[in-house]
Formats: sequence, C-alpha cells, structure tokens
Amino acid sequence: MVETARRREIEDVASTLFREHGYAGTSVRDIARALDIQGASLYAHVTSKQDVLWSIVERAATRFETAADAASLAAAAGPDAADGIGPAPTRLAALVRAHVAVVTDDIGRASVFVHEWRSLTGERRAQMARRRDAYERRFRAIIDDGVGTGAFVAVDPIIAAAFLLTSLNGIATWYRPDGRVTPAALADAYAELAVEALRPGSSGRSADPTDEAAS
Amino acid sequence: MVETARRREIEDVASTLFREHGYAGTSVRDIARALDIQGASLYAHVTSKQDVLWSIVERAATRFETAADAASLAAAAGPDAADGIGPAPTRLAALVRAHVAVVTDDIGRASVFVHEWRSLTGERRAQMARRRDAYERRFRAIIDDGVGTGAFVAVDPIIAAAFLLTSLNGIATWYRPDGRVTPAALADAYAELAVEALRPGSSGRSADPTDEAAS
Repeated sequence: MVETARRREIEDVASTLFREHGYAGTSVRDIARALDIQGASLYAHVTSKQDVLWSIVERAATRFETAADAASLAAAAGPDAADGIGPAPTRLAALVRAHVAVVTDDIGRASVFVHEWRSLTGERRAQMARRRDAYERRFRAIIDDGVGTGAFVAVDPIIAAAFLLTSLNGIATWYRPDGRVTPAALADAYAELAVEALRPGSSGRSADPTDEAAS
Repeated sequence: MVETARRREIEDVASTLFREHGYAGTSVRDIARALDIQGASLYAHVTSKQDVLWSIVERAATRFETAADAASLAAAAGPDAADGIGPAPTRLAALVRAHVAVVTDDIGRASVFVHEWRSLTGERRAQMARRRDAYERRFRAIIDDGVGTGAFVAVDPIIAAAFLLTSLNGIATWYRPDGRVTPAALADAYAELAVEALRPGSSGRSADPTDEAAS
C-alpha cells in the first residue's frame, strides 16, 4: 500500500522513538514530527501507531526465524552431522551466532522487538507470543537433545533456554555498534559462553545440576 | 514525610502499573485510581510520578548492593578463602545467588528497576547510572580475578559480565513466582550456569576464547 522506502523510513524513525521513549511514550504526532511531515499526511502511510509497531516487530521476528533456520541447515550440513542434524553444541553455537548477528545488525529494531512486543494488542500479540514460544523451543530442543546425549550436563532445558535467550536479547540494551567489540567478536564470545555453560567440565560435574552449585 | 505503610502501598501499586504499562504509559491519576484515592490526595503523599519511580528504583538498587556486600562477606569467610576474599568461582556463585534472590523476592520492583531506571531524569538518573556501573564492576572484577588465577578461561570480563547480568536481570521478565521453579532452584541453576560458562572445560579450552567457538 505504500512504497517500501517510505515505509522503511517510517519504521526507522519509529524504532528510534520507541526505543528512547517507549511505545506508550511516543505518539503518531511524534513520529510525524521526526519525519518532518504533517500528522494527516502520515496517516496516509500508516493507519495507526499499532501498525507501525507490528511492522517493526513482525519483520524482526521473521529475521530471527530465518537466521535460525539457516543456522540449523548449516549445522546439519557440517562435517560432524553424522545424524543429519549435527551435535547439540554445534547447533547451539550456530543458533547463538545467528541470534547475535540479527541483534547487532539492527540494534534499534531488535530493541523495540525485545522491549515492546507486549505493546501489541489482540490477535497480533497472541501471534507474536506463539512465535516467540516456538523460537524459544528451538533452544530448549537443542539443550534437551544435548542433555540426552551427554553433550550437556543435566540442566533444566527451560531454565537454561531462558538464561541464554535473555542474555542474547540483552545485547540490544547494552551493545554499542561503534564500540570496541565487533559483532563477530561478540558472536564468538556468546557462542563460547553459551556452550560452555552447558558442557560437562573437568571439575566432574554430575548429572545433578545442583550438586556443585550447592557446594 | 509520609507514613511508611502508605508509601509502601503507593510504590506497590505504582510498580504494578509501571510494569504493565511502562512509566510513560502510567499517569499519577492512574496510580491514584488504583489506590482508590483522589488525585489531589495522592499529591499530598507524592510530589510527582518521578518521585515514586525514584523511590522504587533507589530501594531496589540498595537491595542489590546490600545483598552483594553480604555475598562478598560470606565468600570471604568461607573455608576456601585462604586469601581473605575467596576463589573467583565461589565469589561469582555467591553474587549470582544474591542477585537471583533479590529479583525473585520482589519481581514487580525488580522489573521496574531493570526496565524503567532510564526514565529517571537529571541527577537521579546520573546517580543510578553510576551505581549500576559500580555494581557491574563487581562482576567484572571477579571475572578478571578468575581469569588471572586460571580459575576462568580468558574471556573478556566486560562481555562476560554483560552476558551474566542481562541474564540475571531477565529473570524479572520471565520468572513466575507461582510456577514450578522455586527461587532456590533458580539460584542453584543460575549459579551453576554462570560459573560453568567461565570455567575451563574438559574439552581443552585454550587461553583464546575464540578458538573453540570458531571451530
């Protein structure tokens, strides 16, 4: 309904405003002012603030899903994928790298996705909740698989997936693209931290994840 | 200036509203309505919405700091604290447990602290930024110490601290106190994940944190 470049521009400006002031703290008038157009003209492009948020969030969700699919395929085509999917540590590292890449590629939109998807209403919010759950299940499934094969210690996959995903989403809050840490170095570090958090160590961790932590 | 119980009640109600609708999406009138009092009467207790946010955030920050101090003292008094402070893994586990306990003890306030401290303005925001930085430096210092003694692999302490702290703060978003995971089990699991993410594994991790993740 509207040319892509204009829509992209509106989403960029809205992302910046939503990130700085929150969805609730931003009005359509604020978006129009930042674009230097009149409110009525903006409404020719965008039906509502909710529509802009949906576009941003939906597009971000699709990028995370697409990147995760590609990571799965790459892990399944790897040299150690004798079983056709690849070992859990390889798959987890690939998924973490994919997620870091999507976040660092567009911090503004990733931040809006993470912090404001709950500002969606009705069926859109319900759809996004389902997609987020499905995305989280990718992490849980890999962790569960790794626990089953002994590649990972006996953690609770639900807790471990939440631990990793909140860390990954947190990048949108603290990471500065103009800082000293490159996206590639960040992806390396996070993949390492994620896999090592779950891998049996030299310290003889047992099947009971509370043994050592309680010592 | 106002009796503690009333102030506590105002903060509880405001925490719930800030958490659900965001600071920007909540008005003093909303707070008054939820308390079933008139706006003018509320202003007798609270000068502004900023003041309520400050009370919530400041109190939460103090709880995190106090708990971290206690964790340090406990680690320093532990049986393995020959050096007077305790080994890095012990200190990190204690700090993680302390943080988890503060978050799970009052999810609503922890959530407002994490998501809305940036809604503070002026000197209050600056003070809170300094206190958050100092708190993060506790994590960095322990990680740095562990890297130095070889208790931890050669991670970048800044990245590793951000990884852990965003995970810890993320608990305020996903954890349900009425769910199947008790606060104690969560503290166990997070302390384990945090320490193991950094501990040298049986897989022969070298001093270069990118070696393995890049393989």
